[in-house]
Amino acid sequence: MNQFRFELIHESNECLGRTGKISTRCGDIETPVFMPVGTQGTVKTLSPDELIESNAQIILSNTYHLFLRPGTEVLEKFGGLHNFMAWPRPILTDSGGFQVFSLKTLNKITDEGVTFASHIDGSRKFLSPEEAIRIQSSIGSEIMMVFDECSPFPIEYNEAKEAMERSVRWALRCRKAHPAMKNGQALFGIIQGSMFHDLRDESLKQTVEIGFEGLAIGGLSVGEPKNLMLEVLEALTPKMPKAFPRYLMGVGTPEDLFFGVERGIDMFDCVHPTRIARHSSAFTRDGRIDLSAASHSFSDQPIDSTCTCATCRKFSRGYIRHLFKAGEILALRLASLHNVHFLINLMREIREALLAGTFNSLRCNFLERYGSATVQKKTTEEEN
Amino acid sequence: MNQFRFELIHESNECLGRTGKISTRCGDIETPVFMPVGTQGTVKTLSPDELIESNAQIILSNTYHLFLRPGTEVLEKFGGLHNFMAWPRPILTDSGGFQVFSLKTLNKITDEGVTFASHIDGSRKFLSPEEAIRIQSSIGSEIMMVFDECSPFPIEYNEAKEAMERSVRWALRCRKAHPAMKNGQALFGIIQGSMFHDLRDESLKQTVEIGFEGLAIGGLSVGEPKNLMLEVLEALTPKMPKAFPRYLMGVGTPEDLFFGVERGIDMFDCVHPTRIARHSSAFTRDGRIDLSAASHSFSDQPIDSTCTCATCRKFSRGYIRHLFKAGEILALRLASLHNVHFLINLMREIREALLAGTFNSLRCNFLERYGSATVQKKTTEEEN
Repeated sequence: MNQFRFELIHESNECLGRTGKISTRCGDIETPVFMPVGTQGTVKTLSPDELIESNAQIILSNTYHLFLRPGTEVLEKFGGLHNFMAWPRPILTDSGGFQVFSLKTLNKITDEGVTFASHIDGSRKFLSPEEAIRIQSSIGSEIMMVFDECSPFPIEYNEAKEAMERSVRWALRCRKAHPAMKNGQALFGIIQGSMFHDLRDESLKQTVEIGFEGLAIGGLSVGEPKNLMLEVLEALTPKMPKAFPRYLMGVGTPEDLFFGVERGIDMFDCVHPTRIARHSSAFTRDGRIDLSAASHSFSDQPIDSTCTCATCRKFSRGYIRHLFKAGEILALRLASLHNVHFLINLMREIREALLAGTFNSLRCNFLERYGSATVQKKTTEEEN
Repeated sequence: MNQFRFELIHESNECLGRTGKISTRCGDIETPVFMPVGTQGTVKTLSPDELIESNAQIILSNTYHLFLRPGTEVLEKFGGLHNFMAWPRPILTDSGGFQVFSLKTLNKITDEGVTFASHIDGSRKFLSPEEAIRIQSSIGSEIMMVFDECSPFPIEYNEAKEAMERSVRWALRCRKAHPAMKNGQALFGIIQGSMFHDLRDESLKQTVEIGFEGLAIGGLSVGEPKNLMLEVLEALTPKMPKAFPRYLMGVGTPEDLFFGVERGIDMFDCVHPTRIARHSSAFTRDGRIDLSAASHSFSDQPIDSTCTCATCRKFSRGYIRHLFKAGEILALRLASLHNVHFLINLMREIREALLAGTFNSLRCNFLERYGSATVQKKTTEEEN
């Protein structure tokens, strides 16, 4: 039984956007999809039930963090992360590569792997392609990611090339350590190459040759100007095989969902909605608002009058503002719940618009009101 | 229509314990009852829905805190605290007296009232009997408390006497400012007098003479040895009129529920369950446990195997331990939810045991396992 399948359902006539369905052993995922991030085995401030009520189809969790805490012994004792955190739907895990290469305590990189100091207790740790696979096997995610070297921005061409080439070698070792669909777990390759199009092309070619159940685009949203990110996507996605899900790693503002979808992306993840929520910032159809602002003190309106989330159904801006000013944890919960629901609901609208042929209309209407239409749509007309 | 009524349902043969029902405009309360504390218009970390799922019948909120933030203008704009915080069941508000007299920034006490500095911005504020009534009217609680002077422990007899006498004068002014059941809001008197039995008797006598819808015992659990508190209760409750609900303010550990109920108390409130939860401490039938302890790392058991709360139905000690170590807010939520549910459920068992004539059996079984049976039962046999 193949426990992982991607079915391309519809290709838009308006852009490179497409709808599809990923089938996994614990449920289907309609794409394009936004994945809330549960770094340490919990989407910050939210319960699994709240995620399900928000129609979260899949969450992302971080191999680096779970490796250090609680560790694979604990995860194995519980039979994996699903049981541990009581989350019944699919999980995607990154490989730890991004975190390790972002660390200030990075010790030593060799072709064998990476030595680093734990951010928790400073102890010496080691990650390699094989180790990343071992940990993700213990986690039991439906979608595992290869261990890669994620380049910072900006970076010299030669360094980006070296990192990309090492990532390809590591991807091959990951694939060897985890043959297709072993234990029902899919493995995705990651395309690197920074902002250099020839490196991206080479990375794509070799990653496809190795053969994975899905393809991710890494090394974007790492500090580069937005237009650079979009240029990489525009150059890359038309060359990507259509039969595999395409995952744009670490990207997920409301505007980025549109920019990515119309360039052919199927999967997104980002800490953005929960992180800004904890800093009292909430999405509305009219742009982001600061819930701690005095202007909301007397407002009996919900965060967004069109939103159907549990926060907007029951609580006012005035009350949530009070909770933020008073330092109450319920503030963080209510704002996080709303922001996650907002993105998931927006993605549902995007899927429906792709199917109905009204994507451009939704895109224009949304971005005009939301106030992020500053990035011009530069693509797809010529490329289609 | 009388919107507040106390009905004495059953008096125990085993002790001074009794069951009853308080009817209010927004629902009935079975007594004895434990009231979770929502100091700033939220029971810390929990949503109203979670409180309802925990069978919370009534919550307490703090006049002092709501007065300073969000303030009565905001509360009035929302039509009171129920609407503001989306809590449909009864609310009891204290009067602010306890907080004001606990403040290090207390400025000046006169018979007129108390001047103090706000703990938020240091601004000069004033509370008096009339002002406490005004604020509680804006809050719209079903049960208001008189503004009283709560003495610290220990205190000299003469000081305790002065404070008690001032509290009586203030109680009279509160009653004048709020005639019985004005706007559907009940007003409770508070018996003071520190640990001095003659002062307690005098306070009781004068408070009953003024006439309130219920009677509270204040100034206990303020640092005195537990036996002193119990002695005051033992001397006082047999003299209290049976027709009014009796509320022991600020008391609510599991063992204190038993000690209070068997001495004739009907209502309890305490920050204890939510406060200790945020410090990773959880109630079990076998005593309190520290959820952050390494010994729970591999435990797939719930906090308490007999508990039916949402935390215990879904999550293990091992996972909650991980959340606490990782500093995740969900840890605080899960532990708070369990502790509140635990006390509310324990109180339900106590009510059922009083009715069934099995209170002493429940008391013995619970305290023996819980490990708090060190305080001897000293009462009731002689007094009954």
